[in-house]
Amino acid sequence: MVVVMRPHAGEPAIEDVIERLNGYGFDVHRSSGVNQTVLGAIGVKPDFDVRHIQVLEGVADVYRVTSPYKFASRSWKKNDTLIDVAGRSIGGDTLTVIAGPCSVEDEEQMEATAAHVAAHGATLLRGGAFKPRTSPYSFQGLGEEGLRLLRAAGDRHDLGVITEVMDIAKIDLIHQYTDIFQVGARNMQNFDLLKELGHAGKPVFLKRGASATIEEWLMAAEYLIAHGNPDVILCERGIRTFETATRNTLDLSSIPVVKQKSHLPIFADPSHGTGRRDAVLPMARAAVAAGADGLMVEVHPNPPAAKSDGPQSLLFDQFVQLMTHVRAIAEVVGRNVAPAHVSA
Amino acid sequence: MVVVMRPHAGEPAIEDVIERLNGYGFDVHRSSGVNQTVLGAIGVKPDFDVRHIQVLEGVADVYRVTSPYKFASRSWKKNDTLIDVAGRSIGGDTLTVIAGPCSVEDEEQMEATAAHVAAHGATLLRGGAFKPRTSPYSFQGLGEEGLRLLRAAGDRHDLGVITEVMDIAKIDLIHQYTDIFQVGARNMQNFDLLKELGHAGKPVFLKRGASATIEEWLMAAEYLIAHGNPDVILCERGIRTFETATRNTLDLSSIPVVKQKSHLPIFADPSHGTGRRDAVLPMARAAVAAGADGLMVEVHPNPPAAKSDGPQSLLFDQFVQLMTHVRAIAEVVGRNVAPAHVSA
Amino acid sequence: MVVVMRPHAGEPAIEDVIERLNGYGFDVHRSSGVNQTVLGAIGVKPDFDVRHIQVLEGVADVYRVTSPYKFASRSWKKNDTLIDVAGRSIGGDTLTVIAGPCSVEDEEQMEATAAHVAAHGATLLRGGAFKPRTSPYSFQGLGEEGLRLLRAAGDRHDLGVITEVMDIAKIDLIHQYTDIFQVGARNMQNFDLLKELGHAGKPVFLKRGASATIEEWLMAAEYLIAHGNPDVILCERGIRTFETATRNTLDLSSIPVVKQKSHLPIFADPSHGTGRRDAVLPMARAAVAAGADGLMVEVHPNPPAAKSDGPQSLLFDQFVQLMTHVRAIAEVVGRNVAPAHVSA
Amino acid sequence: MVVVMRPHAGEPAIEDVIERLNGYGFDVHRSSGVNQTVLGAIGVKPDFDVRHIQVLEGVADVYRVTSPYKFASRSWKKNDTLIDVAGRSIGGDTLTVIAGPCSVEDEEQMEATAAHVAAHGATLLRGGAFKPRTSPYSFQGLGEEGLRLLRAAGDRHDLGVITEVMDIAKIDLIHQYTDIFQVGARNMQNFDLLKELGHAGKPVFLKRGASATIEEWLMAAEYLIAHGNPDVILCERGIRTFETATRNTLDLSSIPVVKQKSHLPIFADPSHGTGRRDAVLPMARAAVAAGADGLMVEVHPNPPAAKSDGPQSLLFDQFVQLMTHVRAIAEVVGRNVAPAHVSA
Repeated sequence: MVVVMRPHAGEPAIEDVIERLNGYGFDVHRSSGVNQTVLGAIGVKPDFDVRHIQVLEGVADVYRVTSPYKFASRSWKKNDTLIDVAGRSIGGDTLTVIAGPCSVEDEEQMEATAAHVAAHGATLLRGGAFKPRTSPYSFQGLGEEGLRLLRAAGDRHDLGVITEVMDIAKIDLIHQYTDIFQVGARNMQNFDLLKELGHAGKPVFLKRGASATIEEWLMAAEYLIAHGNPDVILCERGIRTFETATRNTLDLSSIPVVKQKSHLPIFADPSHGTGRRDAVLPMARAAVAAGADGLMVEVHPNPPAAKSDGPQSLLFDQFVQLMTHVRAIAEVVGRNVAPAHVSA
Repeated sequence: MVVVMRPHAGEPAIEDVIERLNGYGFDVHRSSGVNQTVLGAIGVKPDFDVRHIQVLEGVADVYRVTSPYKFASRSWKKNDTLIDVAGRSIGGDTLTVIAGPCSVEDEEQMEATAAHVAAHGATLLRGGAFKPRTSPYSFQGLGEEGLRLLRAAGDRHDLGVITEVMDIAKIDLIHQYTDIFQVGARNMQNFDLLKELGHAGKPVFLKRGASATIEEWLMAAEYLIAHGNPDVILCERGIRTFETATRNTLDLSSIPVVKQKSHLPIFADPSHGTGRRDAVLPMARAAVAAGADGLMVEVHPNPPAAKSDGPQSLLFDQFVQLMTHVRAIAEVVGRNVAPAHVSA
Repeated sequence: MVVVMRPHAGEPAIEDVIERLNGYGFDVHRSSGVNQTVLGAIGVKPDFDVRHIQVLEGVADVYRVTSPYKFASRSWKKNDTLIDVAGRSIGGDTLTVIAGPCSVEDEEQMEATAAHVAAHGATLLRGGAFKPRTSPYSFQGLGEEGLRLLRAAGDRHDLGVITEVMDIAKIDLIHQYTDIFQVGARNMQNFDLLKELGHAGKPVFLKRGASATIEEWLMAAEYLIAHGNPDVILCERGIRTFETATRNTLDLSSIPVVKQKSHLPIFADPSHGTGRRDAVLPMARAAVAAGADGLMVEVHPNPPAAKSDGPQSLLFDQFVQLMTHVRAIAEVVGRNVAPAHVSA
Repeated sequence: MVVVMRPHAGEPAIEDVIERLNGYGFDVHRSSGVNQTVLGAIGVKPDFDVRHIQVLEGVADVYRVTSPYKFASRSWKKNDTLIDVAGRSIGGDTLTVIAGPCSVEDEEQMEATAAHVAAHGATLLRGGAFKPRTSPYSFQGLGEEGLRLLRAAGDRHDLGVITEVMDIAKIDLIHQYTDIFQVGARNMQNFDLLKELGHAGKPVFLKRGASATIEEWLMAAEYLIAHGNPDVILCERGIRTFETATRNTLDLSSIPVVKQKSHLPIFADPSHGTGRRDAVLPMARAAVAAGADGLMVEVHPNPPAAKSDGPQSLLFDQFVQLMTHVRAIAEVVGRNVAPAHVSA
């Protein structure tokens, strides 16, 4: 921690700050210039609230000099984390595509979707069984029946599956069906849930909160790792800004920033990130070009009839086109995508 | 719902939209101008996703014409909601002050704080027992022991108590000790938690999420009411913006806006809203001047030693000053504050 | 400037950074901990771009330790700046109210408005003659005729006048009529305009840009002062956020923050800050309660007929009520408002 | 315009609204449901402020149904606008790369940069002669000497040139040297400047303001076109959000949105959009993948010595790599880039 005193701060103020820092357990190095003093406070206290010092007499500014997360940082682990899911690797040279409907609705829908996305190169099937909905009057998901349908469709087409967990009480149930636990944007700072998922024994797909900084997002990952789960996949899904032409603003620059700060894989979700079908294809291409390790996209056999998020779900044809473009761009950036089983 | 077609949209496109609207169960009124057609879709479907229509050929824009919430709206209930807590009324002509430390730390701290805030006119005591902390390495609260200390201190000084609930599994435990359940900003859209609190039988203090619009906030209140709990108190605690001089941007204009849209009482929390002790007093005054029904402020007998949020906690003297100013401004806007038991 | 090296950064990287800093003219103090080195770079270079150092090998973070502005800072000038306008003082114990229509429209409108606001305690008359309008098809102002009408109405009622300048070419013309030059939010970083106003010889009313941080706003003030004009009045008028219920989000916490960082007077404009007439009164009260040195509000004899911003303009009766409330709150915070000439 | 009355609004309120609308010159179609009335107001008034109706008794909401811009819209002109600059076409199948230093510093710098970027496929040379700087103490540009050096370097290497204009008074001077006028983000709503550039006779490169919505940006383009200049190139350069890891948040989703709403070409500037050299390459690739018509990037022979924005300027080698990647991705999306004259 670095404490910058105000220009011409008096000696008593400076000494008081040093004493306080010592009281909090820091060693202090003092450096005095002509009209300004800077104090270096040495000691590892990741949970220290720097505002304790900021409010003291004579203090101009305080800077934390170590990142508040450790296990999630690139300085702790140099190499990219690879995560094994259902026999396939996520991260590294692979570009992984997760596809499927927003909500699991029925067997026919899941079968059609799983068959289609598997044929064109997706390796993980998504589908919500417990849905976080802004309105209490909206479809809230099929519950366990949804989990069963998701798993069955995935198994029939050799796809791993991923689904969202919203509450601690559901972890055990969902564990029986899923390969990856998804934590939604609204729960990114549901710390009790993160702690429990720390010993859930399966990877966690951690979406960025709509108002979370990259640092806070990595702190949420730190919760998972510190509580025992190193298999964390980050997913950029858009932040809230003043622009309303899109549902969120997909912050693709988070991809190179995270790659520099952390060893964890990072995906992008252009469906939630834009909220409009016509923007999903260009933004999926852009995410891969920016260096994403994977994509999560919503696909539905009949979007106008979807029980949730139909307007941002791709038609089957559009998914084929997306895979074709993504495959070409992946090649430019040195990534492999699972092959299509049918010709596009 | 109003559907605006693009200028010169063709007849087949218009007819297709009408057919779709009928398919979703709407009656349609058509109004054609010289070069533009507008369709009015009549029917009450609070959970309809307007983007289904937005993506159709020829559609320029779609507007929902009813607010998506019902029970939380002023058009459903004209008069201000008054909530009885521990024999005292919240809302209406009363200005209620909730005060106390961020976290419950020990008996001495709680006793000193409760005695002080009660003496100067607070009627509710706050204190966290289970704390949502950005870092997994920060103090996470005393748990049930914290609840016990909070309740005991409140009882000794005739103060009602309020504390935060972060997870469904803790509702029953917390219910034994608290008068009001607080839902924190990070859980404003934890819909499973809201549903359960719908039948918790005690009032809920619902903080605004850092990236929640006023409409989404009222939708979260709607979850509580629709699931059985009409006693909802809203609390503005700052939104996330680009400005970093303050921890959040306290959006006081939400107070007149909520007063116009809803019958629910609305408080402000200048401690979290600004994150800096020197801004709490002016922003507390401002909140009351803007029409708030109450304040929640953090007070600590020794802020530099606080285990959380010390830098934004008021010193005892500052709380006395705050109550003096607030009392004077309350009078200007026609509100009553509980009397001080000692002279300021 | 403080340069924090990454943990375990190698000696060559550290020495390279020191050499670069020396090359830029800084003296360097080195402080090495067990696994991390911190460098203090001493030397006053207000325009140094710290990113030059941030991008070097081994550097974790760089912090500027002096504020980038000087003349606008409280550390350069301890006492509040008082500004004399037309024989009346702005700042200090005085609360100044500026009122008038958005645009000057005709003589009758100006006469009615000036008479009314003067009678109730405003001391400055506002009115736009050259209007910045989002649409090229909107009313763009009366030009010099507007300036003439504004001045005449002000003179008849002993009010100083203020009007907006949008372009260097208009400075001389506007100088003939106005007492204060207003710089609008959209021009807060029109640096050529600021430089010219630095030697305009009359005070400048500098509105905060909709996406400007408080620091950038004070830097804009610094332009004016550094180019010769110390008479700068700041005005908070709302920032752009994700919330759309109000036109902007009036950031009243900027008031205590600016008071701490700067000696300049700060006003608030609740009319532009909210964009809705029903929020002007509560937010005007709130601004005064937060410590503002003055208010700018829009008043119009017939808002529905106004050529611009009618919906946020107060009716005459509402202005009377505003002055009554403001006067009462000013008293609570120790401020004087000019007396009303008629009974409210 | 569509006016939605509150549920159960009384007949007098409805009739009053109709009368007002007629007074403003609208024809009104009334549609009454069981408990709600909707009014369609027909008539083309692009500058009508809908808030006039919003504030009336009984009105719930008002929606403008036509976009406020005309000439900039895709519904006015179906085909993509192609712009001829110095004999080369911008827009359509071409992907145009603009490169060069932030500021023109001296002849050697311009010669080296122009030679390098031309050799690798850039067709336009950028360089600032008049610089908008946040600090009055920063380098403000070489002025006319800078324009001369820019033009000469461009001419020697067969590159068109582009430079920023900040003030009306400089238009004539800059016109003598440049092929394209750049309007910076801070001047996007400098309406007087836009009006003058409407008859400047050369294309305008209009950067998006940091807090401008896409609609406001297209309105600024409308100013240019309505005042006579149809040759407008849009440039996304990042918006201001709460995230501080990057200087701005490059909103690449604006590209597909603008393509849908407008016929104008749209570029991206990943240098200003991110502010960090290590993010420029991935975000340049992403912009092309998202469908941009071109890129503007900063390149400098010796970034650490640059007088402005060195930290976000590419090294020469990095520019070569960027062109290689961009060329490959351009092919995927069906675009042509000017050939490199040397092998990469």
